[in-house]
Amino acid sequence: MTTRLHGVLAPVLTPFDAALAPDVGRFIAHCRWLVDQGAALAIFGTNSEAASLSVAERLSLTDALLEAGIPAAKLMPGTGASALTDAVELTRHASRAGAAGVLMLPPFFYKGVSDDGVFAYYAEVIERVGSGCAPIYLYHIPQVTQVPITLALIERLLKRYPEVIAGAKDSSGDWSNSKAMIDRYAAGGFDVFPASEVFLSRSLAIGGAGCISATVNMNPAAIRRVYESWSTPEGPDLQARADVVRRIFESAPMIPAMKHVVSTFAGEPRWRTVRPPLVALDPAVGARVTTELAAAGFAMPGYPRH
Amino acid sequence: MTTRLHGVLAPVLTPFDAALAPDVGRFIAHCRWLVDQGAALAIFGTNSEAASLSVAERLSLTDALLEAGIPAAKLMPGTGASALTDAVELTRHASRAGAAGVLMLPPFFYKGVSDDGVFAYYAEVIERVGSGCAPIYLYHIPQVTQVPITLALIERLLKRYPEVIAGAKDSSGDWSNSKAMIDRYAAGGFDVFPASEVFLSRSLAIGGAGCISATVNMNPAAIRRVYESWSTPEGPDLQARADVVRRIFESAPMIPAMKHVVSTFAGEPRWRTVRPPLVALDPAVGARVTTELAAAGFAMPGYPRH
Repeated sequence: MTTRLHGVLAPVLTPFDAALAPDVGRFIAHCRWLVDQGAALAIFGTNSEAASLSVAERLSLTDALLEAGIPAAKLMPGTGASALTDAVELTRHASRAGAAGVLMLPPFFYKGVSDDGVFAYYAEVIERVGSGCAPIYLYHIPQVTQVPITLALIERLLKRYPEVIAGAKDSSGDWSNSKAMIDRYAAGGFDVFPASEVFLSRSLAIGGAGCISATVNMNPAAIRRVYESWSTPEGPDLQARADVVRRIFESAPMIPAMKHVVSTFAGEPRWRTVRPPLVALDPAVGARVTTELAAAGFAMPGYPRH
Repeated sequence: MTTRLHGVLAPVLTPFDAALAPDVGRFIAHCRWLVDQGAALAIFGTNSEAASLSVAERLSLTDALLEAGIPAAKLMPGTGASALTDAVELTRHASRAGAAGVLMLPPFFYKGVSDDGVFAYYAEVIERVGSGCAPIYLYHIPQVTQVPITLALIERLLKRYPEVIAGAKDSSGDWSNSKAMIDRYAAGGFDVFPASEVFLSRSLAIGGAGCISATVNMNPAAIRRVYESWSTPEGPDLQARADVVRRIFESAPMIPAMKHVVSTFAGEPRWRTVRPPLVALDPAVGARVTTELAAAGFAMPGYPRH
């Protein structure tokens, strides 16, 4: 069992080249910067456009990070997929690589599926990967998947697979749901990560494990400081300053807006590229976002210029 | 350009073995029976649990059918996927195999995507596959994907790729939408297939191309007769009789219910197996469905006993 990942994780943005292929060099550089700033790496999340990547592309990017010396102990790859066999392959690969955990979407094509069916999916993956399966974090993002990770499902999975089910990412944006997950299961070692730093102080105060937040991609050090100092006198101010930055990103389509901002700080226009069905940010919106960030004193210190 | 597929197509059920792997032998036997009964084969649709299969599994099943002598001219494989690169690989493979067409879902993970983004996805696939791309049928199933194929999108795609965009499957269940697709685009050679035989007579009457319907898996000959004879004096009665069978299947979770019924006629309990997140049919519901079908005089003549 690896040490449990707590703290601040980025669902790592995936850079593409002009042909829409993943740009391995920029991916590694971005991950290195994030780790240097105190963040861990939830590669292949929703904000990574992971659903737009093939299994082979995900495996190859993971291997490239490891070969570049990014520690497996910093990695929580997304390994959920519609196809059972894809989820097994991705989870097995991450487990063998020694990843600190895997973040698993439920199967997201069929709608109106039962908890029985989602339980069977996770159970099948866990049984097939077998011993050595990385700790599994359940990924609750019902507004996208339409397939919720219910509290009843968590309870069943924890009961059946207490050694493997390690926690959850709650992307519902519903604080009462994150709180219910923490209140019921955190004491037993179930690590709950809300998907936005706006919930960071209040979740840590009741036993949350950190956050896995899109904006960690740009603002890792400031969010890390909230994590470390939320209970000190400066905590509320640190939280409020991080929230200002978060809200600016939330005022635009998040993934293209984040790529736009990284592009600006990297001096690399190609960072703006997204894969269909996403579309690049309207330049006027991009200009507004960067102006607002500048007014808030936002920067990406030490970000590698490409 | 291959001859356009018109008529009656089955979104072919995918049989699994006890280890949840596709059962190639039963898949081939099922496809042979369907072709013998006058149906063509929309393999890897929603009812095929295609989203629960990996790309490699889909490619391998396609190759197995072709090696078994099923004509490529009878095939309309589903090649849509969340991941652009998967959709390209599947579409390229089907095109090279000489498939009569491909049925393409829009990318279905992200919600609230724009027509611009969905257009870019289809355009990218078409450009990458290049010359020799099989005719593409757009797959409108908004209750599952949450990403509609709008009339405006069809118009843009037809204008840009008139040689490739060949039609649509309309699984919305909304007759006014199927009718609008036919009224606007059928005269230009855009072939519209509603997803249920209950719309078959009325769609053929205004220029529809047939249907791609789940229940063709069990009831191909009767639905084929509606297709051939809808405008004869016996047409209304044929339509009404097919509708009775359809309604019985619709009274239960469709995919498990269809597998249950095929299992019964094949004498092969393993036909009932579904992949998670679907769950097998409640046996009591299965018994009710088979009783109602028997009362309606339903049978699967000549279905191969395994």
